[in-house]
Amino acid sequence: MCRFVIYKGTSPVQLSHLLTRPCHSIINQAFDSRLRLDHRRPINGDGFGVGWYDSVHDEELGSQPCIFTSVTPAWNNVNLTRLAEKIKSPLVFAHVRATTAGTLSLDNCHPWSFGKLMWMHNGGIAEFSKIKRRLQSNLPDELFNFVTGNTDSQWAFALFLSKLPDPHAKTFAPHVLRKAMMETIAHINLMTDAENITEPSLMNFCVTDGESVVATRYISSRHEEAASLWFSSGTTFSEYAEGGHYKMSKADKRENIIMVASEPLTFEKADWMEIKTNHMVVITPKMNLLQFPVVDKYYVPPSDPAALNRGTEFAASKGFLSAHRAVSIRPPVDLQVPETQSFPVLVA
Amino acid sequence: MCRFVIYKGTSPVQLSHLLTRPCHSIINQAFDSRLRLDHRRPINGDGFGVGWYDSVHDEELGSQPCIFTSVTPAWNNVNLTRLAEKIKSPLVFAHVRATTAGTLSLDNCHPWSFGKLMWMHNGGIAEFSKIKRRLQSNLPDELFNFVTGNTDSQWAFALFLSKLPDPHAKTFAPHVLRKAMMETIAHINLMTDAENITEPSLMNFCVTDGESVVATRYISSRHEEAASLWFSSGTTFSEYAEGGHYKMSKADKRENIIMVASEPLTFEKADWMEIKTNHMVVITPKMNLLQFPVVDKYYVPPSDPAALNRGTEFAASKGFLSAHRAVSIRPPVDLQVPETQSFPVLVA
Amino acid sequence: MCRFVIYKGTSPVQLSHLLTRPCHSIINQAFDSRLRLDHRRPINGDGFGVGWYDSVHDEELGSQPCIFTSVTPAWNNVNLTRLAEKIKSPLVFAHVRATTAGTLSLDNCHPWSFGKLMWMHNGGIAEFSKIKRRLQSNLPDELFNFVTGNTDSQWAFALFLSKLPDPHAKTFAPHVLRKAMMETIAHINLMTDAENITEPSLMNFCVTDGESVVATRYISSRHEEAASLWFSSGTTFSEYAEGGHYKMSKADKRENIIMVASEPLTFEKADWMEIKTNHMVVITPKMNLLQFPVVDKYYVPPSDPAALNRGTEFAASKGFLSAHRAVSIRPPVDLQVPETQSFPVLVA
Amino acid sequence: MCRFVIYKGTSPVQLSHLLTRPCHSIINQAFDSRLRLDHRRPINGDGFGVGWYDSVHDEELGSQPCIFTSVTPAWNNVNLTRLAEKIKSPLVFAHVRATTAGTLSLDNCHPWSFGKLMWMHNGGIAEFSKIKRRLQSNLPDELFNFVTGNTDSQWAFALFLSKLPDPHAKTFAPHVLRKAMMETIAHINLMTDAENITEPSLMNFCVTDGESVVATRYISSRHEEAASLWFSSGTTFSEYAEGGHYKMSKADKRENIIMVASEPLTFEKADWMEIKTNHMVVITPKMNLLQFPVVDKYYVPPSDPAALNRGTEFAASKGFLSAHRAVSIRPPVDLQVPETQSFPVLVA
Repeated sequence: MCRFVIYKGTSPVQLSHLLTRPCHSIINQAFDSRLRLDHRRPINGDGFGVGWYDSVHDEELGSQPCIFTSVTPAWNNVNLTRLAEKIKSPLVFAHVRATTAGTLSLDNCHPWSFGKLMWMHNGGIAEFSKIKRRLQSNLPDELFNFVTGNTDSQWAFALFLSKLPDPHAKTFAPHVLRKAMMETIAHINLMTDAENITEPSLMNFCVTDGESVVATRYISSRHEEAASLWFSSGTTFSEYAEGGHYKMSKADKRENIIMVASEPLTFEKADWMEIKTNHMVVITPKMNLLQFPVVDKYYVPPSDPAALNRGTEFAASKGFLSAHRAVSIRPPVDLQVPETQSFPVLVA
Repeated sequence: MCRFVIYKGTSPVQLSHLLTRPCHSIINQAFDSRLRLDHRRPINGDGFGVGWYDSVHDEELGSQPCIFTSVTPAWNNVNLTRLAEKIKSPLVFAHVRATTAGTLSLDNCHPWSFGKLMWMHNGGIAEFSKIKRRLQSNLPDELFNFVTGNTDSQWAFALFLSKLPDPHAKTFAPHVLRKAMMETIAHINLMTDAENITEPSLMNFCVTDGESVVATRYISSRHEEAASLWFSSGTTFSEYAEGGHYKMSKADKRENIIMVASEPLTFEKADWMEIKTNHMVVITPKMNLLQFPVVDKYYVPPSDPAALNRGTEFAASKGFLSAHRAVSIRPPVDLQVPETQSFPVLVA
Repeated sequence: MCRFVIYKGTSPVQLSHLLTRPCHSIINQAFDSRLRLDHRRPINGDGFGVGWYDSVHDEELGSQPCIFTSVTPAWNNVNLTRLAEKIKSPLVFAHVRATTAGTLSLDNCHPWSFGKLMWMHNGGIAEFSKIKRRLQSNLPDELFNFVTGNTDSQWAFALFLSKLPDPHAKTFAPHVLRKAMMETIAHINLMTDAENITEPSLMNFCVTDGESVVATRYISSRHEEAASLWFSSGTTFSEYAEGGHYKMSKADKRENIIMVASEPLTFEKADWMEIKTNHMVVITPKMNLLQFPVVDKYYVPPSDPAALNRGTEFAASKGFLSAHRAVSIRPPVDLQVPETQSFPVLVA
Repeated sequence: MCRFVIYKGTSPVQLSHLLTRPCHSIINQAFDSRLRLDHRRPINGDGFGVGWYDSVHDEELGSQPCIFTSVTPAWNNVNLTRLAEKIKSPLVFAHVRATTAGTLSLDNCHPWSFGKLMWMHNGGIAEFSKIKRRLQSNLPDELFNFVTGNTDSQWAFALFLSKLPDPHAKTFAPHVLRKAMMETIAHINLMTDAENITEPSLMNFCVTDGESVVATRYISSRHEEAASLWFSSGTTFSEYAEGGHYKMSKADKRENIIMVASEPLTFEKADWMEIKTNHMVVITPKMNLLQFPVVDKYYVPPSDPAALNRGTEFAASKGFLSAHRAVSIRPPVDLQVPETQSFPVLVA
């Protein structure tokens, strides 16, 4: 399974601070990933990708993100090292890949873009080959032909695009992206159900239009844990000790930076809060972080003992219990809302 | 457009004699291709592939071919250079790619294999994206999921496999391969017709099961020329002058070597005969070379003035006229047979 | 042999206008190079590199250039295509490689940087292996260990660096770069002479510190032609017709853009002037273009009939005669100056 | 630090049994290496190489080994997977790389060959840049120019070649290779001493001429442990349980297979014996395995308490103590011989 990180800030970040310099950056996670559910292959060396939006709007350059991908491991890529020292961006997606599906090819490296939208995925759709035809039959020609690789992740992006009123639109309201994401997950579940696939799918999807971000932590199971997902927010993200030791600082009440990551990027546990299983977070253009439950048949309300067990066992087994307990999300969210009325939860 | 070469011999050839040493080998053709129809990009530097069968049968190794592919150009690939010096094979497919469709990826490098079958293509299916869905809907799940790349060529291979009584069979009679090839071309034409695609498709396809070879020179047009295809046969293929100057020798009446290539591999024009437009050649396990017309609505009988013009103009414009005239195929084939009764034509 | 282009402008250029969009850009030159002396291999597909300086100074990002290199051909590199759409720079070096020396490796891709200096080369030092040890013995440890590849070009850069008073200096006056370049060429000639190497070396070297540029067109022969080198200057460089047809416009008397290239980047012959064999051009920080003869034993004064022949034959054979004649450099340079007193020549 | 494996057998091994199928093969060690001394980066994903000799002598193919290298990780290399299913060899070197020195480049991938000789290295020469010039000055021109990469390992190979009476010889007696290896290590130590380098060098070198093999386990320190090195011998090496579980079987008293590896390739501890620190093993053409101490100032005789501590601590800490104790080398070697008279020790 893969690893990813999302950065959104009021100021642009130099990519090296996110990617190459922190000692527990996503690149170092490529060979020292601690929280992965899939222990068959403990590294993420099957490709790498980073996508970013311009820090200054320039009509000539357009509004699409720029994407750099590589099939060689991220930790020894001289181009990445050089670019990361020179590029600054207020909104970055980065992804290291460990193949669960798809061959080693640039076509299969996350993130992908379509117009101004960008997408990445950590997880896997169970027995994807069984639903691939069905998924494709739901796509208009343009989106069917848009897919160049052979991963479940890129086809899921195409499905997501098909859920948007207009994937070529100039702007996307956060709730539009969120609704399309909900429908994407629901549709995938419908298709796997139709094929009687019982293995759960891991659907940690991220999408952005350069202004809003939607990220899910989701598994199509009531009993198993989704792939990990964390977030951190603060005023500055900087190196406090030599050797790539970074931390998030909160200089005042404003949140200038929000990061969402498969795994904490720092060893400062208090910096990171876990996103709940089967929830979705939204970062708004104005830097609010909202959390919504994905209420469907796999949703376990927090009052249900199963929910408690699920989260606790996971955290305990990973040694992140204290962090998990210490930093809960406030105010507590009322999670028993129906799916169609999910109330936003303002974090911090 | 691409270039390819097929070698079949009673004795194995050292790959270097086919690939790396001849000064007009397919690798040198990668940057000095003379007969290409498509002049937009005069080199074939978008990947390379070579596939070969074992020279000695070994139960442990199986009967599938081995394939080596690369996204870097063939002419500067140290692995290819080293392997070509060490590998001998009695049946080789080699291919240099210039992208007409599909991205730069190992998944998109020819040849591909399925069990003991191997396939490559020179040309392009016109407006393939318009028929891609239709083609896929004709495939059983196994073949639908077999395709990892995004080229018309690999999807055409899947379609071909679907035309076989059993793509997993242990042996394939030459007429079985030939029939499936005919049906593949016919089916593609049906699909492009259904989409009202008028641009002709160039379908120089090659397939082998390690014993027989079927290669087509075909265009879905009565007026335009197919991509070039030549063959040569003889007793030995060897270097007669330093610097990679190779020629085919005929030491006796036996044919030990048959080569089919997009373009002559030697500068000895008398070594090479052009395969007629909209014909198919079959190399049998016993090294007979048969030629069959592909008789359909694009077929122009040789008595038709159009046929004469088409072939002659092409040959004359390329400076290969004398070779073409001097070495005709004997005995002349009666080409006015119905498609289902094509008579084999024994060459030499 | 390789191809390169230098861009220096008062405004930053979007890299795509230089690299990917023009139909005769350096990338298209990669497979359609018309003026190369070396006809053994008519393409430049053995790697690619582009280096650029920031368009806005940012203390955090430093003053070194950013470099992107690739061992796959430039014409099919999705990362290059995407980066070129997003990056703007006032000073760019780009290079496509055809191996004359050195293996296919990122280490061997031009340009290279050292601190804020950047270097590239078109040509080859004759029988470099014979002088490699001697060259290395002249380098301080730091520069000896700086070289990671195995090309004559990168070792020549190390030699150049050793000729600077301080390769780590914060600024380099144009005459300092020019003097070091002269000494580099002289030193290489001394070394090849000492080994009795009679084959001429082609030394079209380029260096910049982000402000000044020095480029040479040089061959260590009185009789043979150096590799081609051209320049163009104007106010805007833009597409005048669809399909990548670019030209240089001169809207007023100011020169906002100076380009130096192995081969004209446009089909507008009047846009380009040939740099004389065995001369050196300097672009100053204030955008003046100066030309200096490299006066040594290989220098042929313009009054010498040999000079006339050399230049004329070359130009005539390439079909660029009219351009060459029509656009001479004004005011005429007095070329009979001794080497130590070369007078600058202000162009345009 | 890297990992390697050597296979020599009386019968050829299908490369897949050595490389791709065993669940603890060198490829799986690429991401699950257990015994590495260097814990900074726990994977070997910076390239891969395998070299092998022909299983049948063929005059046309020559006596040099074939080498396949890759800069992408071994565990996801389709070419390697396909080749490994088809190639059989009686003598194989394979190597996965984690960069300690040198860039990511095919030039830097082990093994390297020179004529019929092949070389690989696990470890690193301390502060190599300080002795690089000195080492080079000891090489004849041919060997100086032979090196294409920038690693200590390849320069050490050049030094080794310079110690041979004739690196182009048709055959090399085992003692000739052994003597050259001893001199290589001694010379490197002389050079690091001359530069007052106190950090120990790890010199696990392997060389073969296709018939004999010499492998060292060496560190230039009396107190620290060399990088691990193990060997196994038996009659057959085969899969005893599904999922890539391999073991070495001893069907009779003959040794048909000898393997030397950085780390055991099976989980059967009794299959593997540790090679002592600062010893050298030689596999003779007739499949005898000899062990020699490298007696120099870093050599600790087994009677010395330091030796006991060194070996025991290491074995104990790794959980291989019982294996280490259980399978001692018989007959016991008299290790107090002077360096020039090292007596061979016949194993098993």
